[in-house]
Amino acid sequence: MSESANPADELAEQYATVRKETERLCRPLAVDDYGIQPMPDASPPKWHLAHTTWFFETFLLKPFHDGYTPFDDAFEFLFNSYYNGVGEQYPRPRRGLLSRPTVEKVFDYRAHVDAAMQDLLAREDEMLGSRTVLGINHEQQHQELIVTDIKYNLGTNPLRPAYDSELDGRPGEARPASFLSIPGGLVEIGARGGEGFTFDNETPRHKVWLGEFALADRPVTCGEYLAFMDDGGYRNPSLWLSEGWTAARQRGWNAPLYWYEQDGEWFEYRLNGSGPVDGNAPVCHVSFFEADAFARWAGARLPTEAEWETAASSHEVAGNFSDSGRLHPASSLDDGLAQVFGDVWEWTASAYGPYPGFKPLPGTLGEYNGKFMANQIVLRGGSCATPPGHVRASYRNFFYAPDRWQFSGIRLAKDAK
Amino acid sequence: MSESANPADELAEQYATVRKETERLCRPLAVDDYGIQPMPDASPPKWHLAHTTWFFETFLLKPFHDGYTPFDDAFEFLFNSYYNGVGEQYPRPRRGLLSRPTVEKVFDYRAHVDAAMQDLLAREDEMLGSRTVLGINHEQQHQELIVTDIKYNLGTNPLRPAYDSELDGRPGEARPASFLSIPGGLVEIGARGGEGFTFDNETPRHKVWLGEFALADRPVTCGEYLAFMDDGGYRNPSLWLSEGWTAARQRGWNAPLYWYEQDGEWFEYRLNGSGPVDGNAPVCHVSFFEADAFARWAGARLPTEAEWETAASSHEVAGNFSDSGRLHPASSLDDGLAQVFGDVWEWTASAYGPYPGFKPLPGTLGEYNGKFMANQIVLRGGSCATPPGHVRASYRNFFYAPDRWQFSGIRLAKDAK
Amino acid sequence: MSESANPADELAEQYATVRKETERLCRPLAVDDYGIQPMPDASPPKWHLAHTTWFFETFLLKPFHDGYTPFDDAFEFLFNSYYNGVGEQYPRPRRGLLSRPTVEKVFDYRAHVDAAMQDLLAREDEMLGSRTVLGINHEQQHQELIVTDIKYNLGTNPLRPAYDSELDGRPGEARPASFLSIPGGLVEIGARGGEGFTFDNETPRHKVWLGEFALADRPVTCGEYLAFMDDGGYRNPSLWLSEGWTAARQRGWNAPLYWYEQDGEWFEYRLNGSGPVDGNAPVCHVSFFEADAFARWAGARLPTEAEWETAASSHEVAGNFSDSGRLHPASSLDDGLAQVFGDVWEWTASAYGPYPGFKPLPGTLGEYNGKFMANQIVLRGGSCATPPGHVRASYRNFFYAPDRWQFSGIRLAKDAK
Amino acid sequence: MSESANPADELAEQYATVRKETERLCRPLAVDDYGIQPMPDASPPKWHLAHTTWFFETFLLKPFHDGYTPFDDAFEFLFNSYYNGVGEQYPRPRRGLLSRPTVEKVFDYRAHVDAAMQDLLAREDEMLGSRTVLGINHEQQHQELIVTDIKYNLGTNPLRPAYDSELDGRPGEARPASFLSIPGGLVEIGARGGEGFTFDNETPRHKVWLGEFALADRPVTCGEYLAFMDDGGYRNPSLWLSEGWTAARQRGWNAPLYWYEQDGEWFEYRLNGSGPVDGNAPVCHVSFFEADAFARWAGARLPTEAEWETAASSHEVAGNFSDSGRLHPASSLDDGLAQVFGDVWEWTASAYGPYPGFKPLPGTLGEYNGKFMANQIVLRGGSCATPPGHVRASYRNFFYAPDRWQFSGIRLAKDAK
Repeated sequence: MSESANPADELAEQYATVRKETERLCRPLAVDDYGIQPMPDASPPKWHLAHTTWFFETFLLKPFHDGYTPFDDAFEFLFNSYYNGVGEQYPRPRRGLLSRPTVEKVFDYRAHVDAAMQDLLAREDEMLGSRTVLGINHEQQHQELIVTDIKYNLGTNPLRPAYDSELDGRPGEARPASFLSIPGGLVEIGARGGEGFTFDNETPRHKVWLGEFALADRPVTCGEYLAFMDDGGYRNPSLWLSEGWTAARQRGWNAPLYWYEQDGEWFEYRLNGSGPVDGNAPVCHVSFFEADAFARWAGARLPTEAEWETAASSHEVAGNFSDSGRLHPASSLDDGLAQVFGDVWEWTASAYGPYPGFKPLPGTLGEYNGKFMANQIVLRGGSCATPPGHVRASYRNFFYAPDRWQFSGIRLAKDAK
Repeated sequence: MSESANPADELAEQYATVRKETERLCRPLAVDDYGIQPMPDASPPKWHLAHTTWFFETFLLKPFHDGYTPFDDAFEFLFNSYYNGVGEQYPRPRRGLLSRPTVEKVFDYRAHVDAAMQDLLAREDEMLGSRTVLGINHEQQHQELIVTDIKYNLGTNPLRPAYDSELDGRPGEARPASFLSIPGGLVEIGARGGEGFTFDNETPRHKVWLGEFALADRPVTCGEYLAFMDDGGYRNPSLWLSEGWTAARQRGWNAPLYWYEQDGEWFEYRLNGSGPVDGNAPVCHVSFFEADAFARWAGARLPTEAEWETAASSHEVAGNFSDSGRLHPASSLDDGLAQVFGDVWEWTASAYGPYPGFKPLPGTLGEYNGKFMANQIVLRGGSCATPPGHVRASYRNFFYAPDRWQFSGIRLAKDAK
Repeated sequence: MSESANPADELAEQYATVRKETERLCRPLAVDDYGIQPMPDASPPKWHLAHTTWFFETFLLKPFHDGYTPFDDAFEFLFNSYYNGVGEQYPRPRRGLLSRPTVEKVFDYRAHVDAAMQDLLAREDEMLGSRTVLGINHEQQHQELIVTDIKYNLGTNPLRPAYDSELDGRPGEARPASFLSIPGGLVEIGARGGEGFTFDNETPRHKVWLGEFALADRPVTCGEYLAFMDDGGYRNPSLWLSEGWTAARQRGWNAPLYWYEQDGEWFEYRLNGSGPVDGNAPVCHVSFFEADAFARWAGARLPTEAEWETAASSHEVAGNFSDSGRLHPASSLDDGLAQVFGDVWEWTASAYGPYPGFKPLPGTLGEYNGKFMANQIVLRGGSCATPPGHVRASYRNFFYAPDRWQFSGIRLAKDAK
Repeated sequence: MSESANPADELAEQYATVRKETERLCRPLAVDDYGIQPMPDASPPKWHLAHTTWFFETFLLKPFHDGYTPFDDAFEFLFNSYYNGVGEQYPRPRRGLLSRPTVEKVFDYRAHVDAAMQDLLAREDEMLGSRTVLGINHEQQHQELIVTDIKYNLGTNPLRPAYDSELDGRPGEARPASFLSIPGGLVEIGARGGEGFTFDNETPRHKVWLGEFALADRPVTCGEYLAFMDDGGYRNPSLWLSEGWTAARQRGWNAPLYWYEQDGEWFEYRLNGSGPVDGNAPVCHVSFFEADAFARWAGARLPTEAEWETAASSHEVAGNFSDSGRLHPASSLDDGLAQVFGDVWEWTASAYGPYPGFKPLPGTLGEYNGKFMANQIVLRGGSCATPPGHVRASYRNFFYAPDRWQFSGIRLAKDAK
């Protein structure tokens, strides 16, 4: 961000940059690709483009911009994701059935809201600022979802078309993994106040007792995962949680999502097209259940989120993010605890719940994070589809245990001997 | 068709005309509209455009055109509707998930096949001729489905966008209905051989004994249907077949499809936009179950297909078809048995089955009609979305009893006193 | 019935006989067996015992017996099958969840109603008489259902316990089948008035034109059906109706219901226990879809109900009914058109619908037959589980095309050359 | 236990006592009640009687008793609940379809196994002893399930029959609730080794950091819950977790399970019959989602399992258990932290997962607890249906968040100011 600018200008610039980035991610798409919802979880890019715009219209423009004229009254209902405080919502599984508004109209909607937002952001106001920053972080989350949802659309199409064949597909070389010992004790986790934006679910910072533990110094690779598969990992119920075993059988899992076998060899769909699975790359698109079964097979376990954060907190937030020109995890030869951030979201052993003393944001925005605190699992560290600058050590992502369409991978942990 | 031309030229011209008509029907669509499948029955226009092309490629070009190169090998699977004799089929409920091939690519596919077909049709050959005529009639059926499927897409979108606001929406005036008495006896129904194209399911022509009966001289109007609704038609189980009552309650029916109530008045979605229900227009978008319940309420019944055909057979095939600039049923002040053809498909009381001595076409094309001869109901007469020249008195359409998205209406019959 | 008795005495005696017969059929059951509903279609015997009683209580005692005290007010709702005119119904799929009333209590209910009925039947009254006869025929239908439903319960239990191991399980010997030619013309079918009880759906008697046809002189045997299976009948879609093929794959059909393979040999569950399939016995427990596919494989077709009735009408109503000590179809060496009645219900090619001029019974009893006239298929002739005296040539049974738990078999027909 | 007896005699006596208690709980049932499974979760009492017997047969008699003859080979499959290490399992949702073996046969099975167990227990052997103790505790868990499952069966029957009308139904009087402050710090939870039987999931004992908190001194009463209902608790989405709100709407919740409204007053089904809700009794049969929503409405929260155990650990394990003659929660006027044990299971805020360093039992018995450690919620303290002596402060029960058929209630907690 420009150093001399005043805070309002900076925010306006940051707003514009993030909004443009969303549109850049959509540039390789055909109009045909924008409206498809191949499963209820994977919303159409058009919907993401509109919903992120709806967020600014609903929480900034309507309450704070006196002269604002809504672009289309029906959008309040159509593009509300889950905010009961705003009103009823168009049903999520039907998002792919909206051929109207057209893509063109949704881009008009974005332009209409962007213009009004620039107008509004000329005003300096703390509440406006914090809500805009929230909206920007919200939009970044949807940038990642645009990538994962379009991957699911194209990757489950029998034609397996590339999203962008120019993406760098070389995974690099992986070094052998080892476990690093990490002393326990009474530690603190969670976001400290006053150090930049954080989501409400990262707070309050609080004490946790941790025993000594060991953490793998890099994520599990495809080669290691193939060994699990070759050893009958998908056929041995004693490795699996009960619900995991049921999910694997009902859904016919025998490999990570996007993998397919041809003439005895494993291939995978990547956003630059299809090719043989490379044993060096971190494995991704596995569910929590697969991560947990793999860990049991490997004589290890998944780390808790407190362990993960304790180990990660002294590391710089850098890695293979969405600006690397890859949109696929890669390997690393870095020493020590490597690939903490970027590449793959790392499933933890922790159920997603409120931290002690957690208070959601007041009002409707309190529906952002808190109301999902049941039956989901925490993932940490960001992925190759996460916008740079979006995550941090205290960042808590969460998905359902059977979900596989995110760039989700595995880092092993162990109890100290 | 031009009188002086030789048969091969005529067929080539007819082929070109019908293929262009399909594309004309799609012209009002946005690219966004082509790929949507709002329910499993309502396929995307893009799919119809490709499947009708697949039909010519599969049954004409591949077997008969020596130098033909398939456009894309994957299309054999992707655009096969239900021909097991050709091979496996891409699952019907997932047709709306194919963002690729794009609309543009599908139009390229059409051009590729059309060029090869013109090449092939230069040759005179009886088998080619009869298969091409079948393909043309097949494409006309899909023209009607394009209209009904796009209506379902746009009409169930909360924005209710018009398909073409220039369509003529004036229903005209309806005259009072009366019953015409028709003598029974030993009649013949079914297609006569050698009088132009007919589908296999219209044959063989055969004798049927009919008692004397009476047939309404026009279809039921919206005004008459509103009286049924006002009289509690949707709340009185004694008017309904058991499965109909269950369907009505499970699906929440309280009016025809596309009708909605606002401030105590009934509106409907039409392809030119939304407006108040006009009591003069024939009611349409009702299921067999609603047609049957209405008839019982009216002290009448639905005609059998033999009764219908007997009454219709002496009438000229003319009426409000897809070339009328309406794409919506209209009223008529014609004398006598009116609106026999066009406006609305008329539900009969007859289950769809084989005529005595029925023989399906040989080979894979025998899967066209015969294998659906269970659990469906015959409709007769064509609708405002049927291409002109496509139907005739012996033409048998068939849908499931709860289906409502076709332009399906009601003509009453009665036993003679 | 005794010749000297007055009609009221005769009816009272007939009532008592049929009521006792229902209880005789239940005698081999353990208390445990009475309450089980292994699929929604197969109601618990306890429910049948109560519902048939409810029929007399609802349609005879409550309206006509002044001093009658209902046994339990809640039974009006609990044991109403589908009569909307009486009121709401306890949901059919939940009939197996009613551990109360106990079996003992249901027998008390029967005794309570039987006593009041005997009281009522002392009075001579035409309406009482015809309703009682209807109730008796209704109870006989449920006698057959008790047999088929308990067979489904025991036959799908992994222990496959016998219902009654004393039943005669010898199928006898079958002779080769041949086709008998039957002249067509203008025939009459349907029940004549004034010749004893008939259901409303058998009326009115009416003219039908039939072409000449041929009818197999006996039902298809297990041996013939095994040849169809050995020839890949369950793997060849070209033999099947489209819905039949889907049903067969979704439900995993590869043989009739109750057949299972062990060490390369086919066994079946019968009510007297399990044993090898006997090639001589008529095949049963096949769906309409299987019957239709078998007929196509055999180069034949199923008869229409008019053909069947025309051929059957001159035959004496005699055969292997529920009093034969078998409760399983058997073979016959009879000459000519054999096994027309009893052994297996014969699937026809005819959808179940109203005869021309059909009028249901007035009032709530009109819900008995008429409201099911959609999407079902007519079966004719009765089975080894049908009470003797219950069926006749004009009798129309009806089930859904995929249903297999009735004793349903196949008789082939052919067009005349 | 008798003081002079040797350990083997004591165990044999304890075995016999617990086995008899299971049968005592079934004594009020009619044979009809034993086989019903009103929802997949609520297994038939007959199944519980057989499965607990299967446990001893499978894990004690087959491996350790040389001369043991299995009662019926098919039972290994039929009564295996979820032990993949033993083999395939009869599908859980179909347990209610097994009319055979009969109740009588299952009691024979119990007697057969009991005799062999007494034989085996004459031998002194540590492994036998610990497995038998596990089997006894397993049987006690099923005693509670017998009570809850039969309550679900009878309580959802439209007749609402009493299980035992002699049970004491007087709830007593409740005193006002207040919050007790509990100091935090570094505490230990989990079972200490060597102090009697514990389940593997209670171990190992480990350190947890707790902030200061406040815990309600008694469970929430029906009166307090009625205030939540009157205040629109079931209509206000802002009180609910997202999944909870969806569950409540889809399942039509507007009160605890077994409550129903009549003429404006709330009644509930209890095992002694139906009656008006008594505001004094602890509320029970609420889901985690309802408990969580109630707590939010009350300005409080649910305790974590560590908080609960810390507060409970100094309390005597005494209260309203299954031997109290009630089988329903009651009130208490006890001072201080009251009703910690018995009455109602208390939903905690903690997802069920492994304690740090958790090791499941070796072999197939390791499937007992560990494989369910995902997507369930911990409940603490036992209920009025729990056998006395079965629970302790470290005992962890677990059910799914929407489950309501257990005796599950609410104890509130708060952060310290």
